[in-house]
Amino acid sequence: MPPDIIFPYKKERETSYAPGAFATIELVRTRPRLLRKVYIRPSFAEKNSLLGECANLGIPTLVGEEAFRRVRQKENEYVIGVFKKYEDRLDPGRAHMVLVSPMDMGNLGTVIRTTAGLNITDLAVISAAADVFHPKTVRASMGALFRVNCAAFDSFEEYRAAFPAHACYPFMLGGEALPQVLAREQNPLFSLIFGNEARGLPPGYAAIGRAVRIPQSPLVDSLNLSVAAGIGAYAFAAKYGLVT
Amino acid sequence: MPPDIIFPYKKERETSYAPGAFATIELVRTRPRLLRKVYIRPSFAEKNSLLGECANLGIPTLVGEEAFRRVRQKENEYVIGVFKKYEDRLDPGRAHMVLVSPMDMGNLGTVIRTTAGLNITDLAVISAAADVFHPKTVRASMGALFRVNCAAFDSFEEYRAAFPAHACYPFMLGGEALPQVLAREQNPLFSLIFGNEARGLPPGYAAIGRAVRIPQSPLVDSLNLSVAAGIGAYAFAAKYGLVT
Repeated sequence: MPPDIIFPYKKERETSYAPGAFATIELVRTRPRLLRKVYIRPSFAEKNSLLGECANLGIPTLVGEEAFRRVRQKENEYVIGVFKKYEDRLDPGRAHMVLVSPMDMGNLGTVIRTTAGLNITDLAVISAAADVFHPKTVRASMGALFRVNCAAFDSFEEYRAAFPAHACYPFMLGGEALPQVLAREQNPLFSLIFGNEARGLPPGYAAIGRAVRIPQSPLVDSLNLSVAAGIGAYAFAAKYGLVT
Repeated sequence: MPPDIIFPYKKERETSYAPGAFATIELVRTRPRLLRKVYIRPSFAEKNSLLGECANLGIPTLVGEEAFRRVRQKENEYVIGVFKKYEDRLDPGRAHMVLVSPMDMGNLGTVIRTTAGLNITDLAVISAAADVFHPKTVRASMGALFRVNCAAFDSFEEYRAAFPAHACYPFMLGGEALPQVLAREQNPLFSLIFGNEARGLPPGYAAIGRAVRIPQSPLVDSLNLSVAAGIGAYAFAAKYGLVT
């Protein structure tokens, strides 16, 4: 498959690519069978160790500059891993993070990195939403995308029908303060639900579970989505012993 | 002052600009005397209300397209507020956020927005660091920059000498887990200290106070700086009642 078929990324293609050595190595170690080819610059310092790892796993590699000239990139990457997109199923026995229409790939990738870091390894993305497989999302996730189960749903109702046992916690400005909610609730099978960057969750979400508010000062309108999701996920993960 | 003197932003100039209506209105309401001029596009929907607010405060305005053509911008702004840079003093009687060599303007602005939202309104930035007055930082802060005290220090030692009474909490991977630290400590006059995006804090910081670690899974190397700062700041703000 020549590079001009792979770059630039397009959502409708069946392949995407992990930009950079860090994300590509995560992919090699977690989902090697999805890798179509790993492109490596001749000047990459750890070239031989990566080539050896790929050879052991039967992953095709190509050392050369040509592919890199075709990628319009902000940062100068030394490695690119082209992979086939995939669909995960969420684990019905584990806690979930649910993002409703996140629109910024940086935020989406950062939330993926954060929830993986807090051992919440199942993520639902409700459409319309930013593309989880876009190289910008992969980059912002630092490759953590490949370590979590990530599934897309056309609507929140579709997600809810698939996982009716989860206790739902929509994060909304009008909800009950996070410390009070945590002090009372006792259900380790939870879904933490966050809305779009600009609008948050529509008011109707208050009825689907216990609406939660992160306490905040009147000095700002709201917190950044990835920060709010981090604070909420940390508080739940710490309470239920997901991380110690 | 013609627009070509103002744009593009340069660090060595005595002025910067707030990009967008949201950040500019924050500036108008918090530090009106620093505003040199507010540029407004003729098509801005709330033009008359902003013009009225500026007139009441004696802030010069210019309605027209020309200034906007000179700003190379990702998003299409309708308002730009040119302001004189300033120096704040931190309040010795309040909790501080301390960032050691943050390099990404998006992260820096997001941390400013977060700490303001958690009522930690004093921020020290230890050089070398990203420019707090760069329009990208101002944009990421959503104008919260103007609502906090922000001061630059050449070294952590200089900061420490100025505020010897604060209990220092360096956030480091080798520290004690955050919940245990919070359960034991009783000092509302605290400094939360976070390192650079790529390297974190140098090991020597462990000796300056109680090193704190945010519990996390082995699935990721680390959390994003602005997420880690958000989790740490939230936990301290909630414990000491800065937000409710």
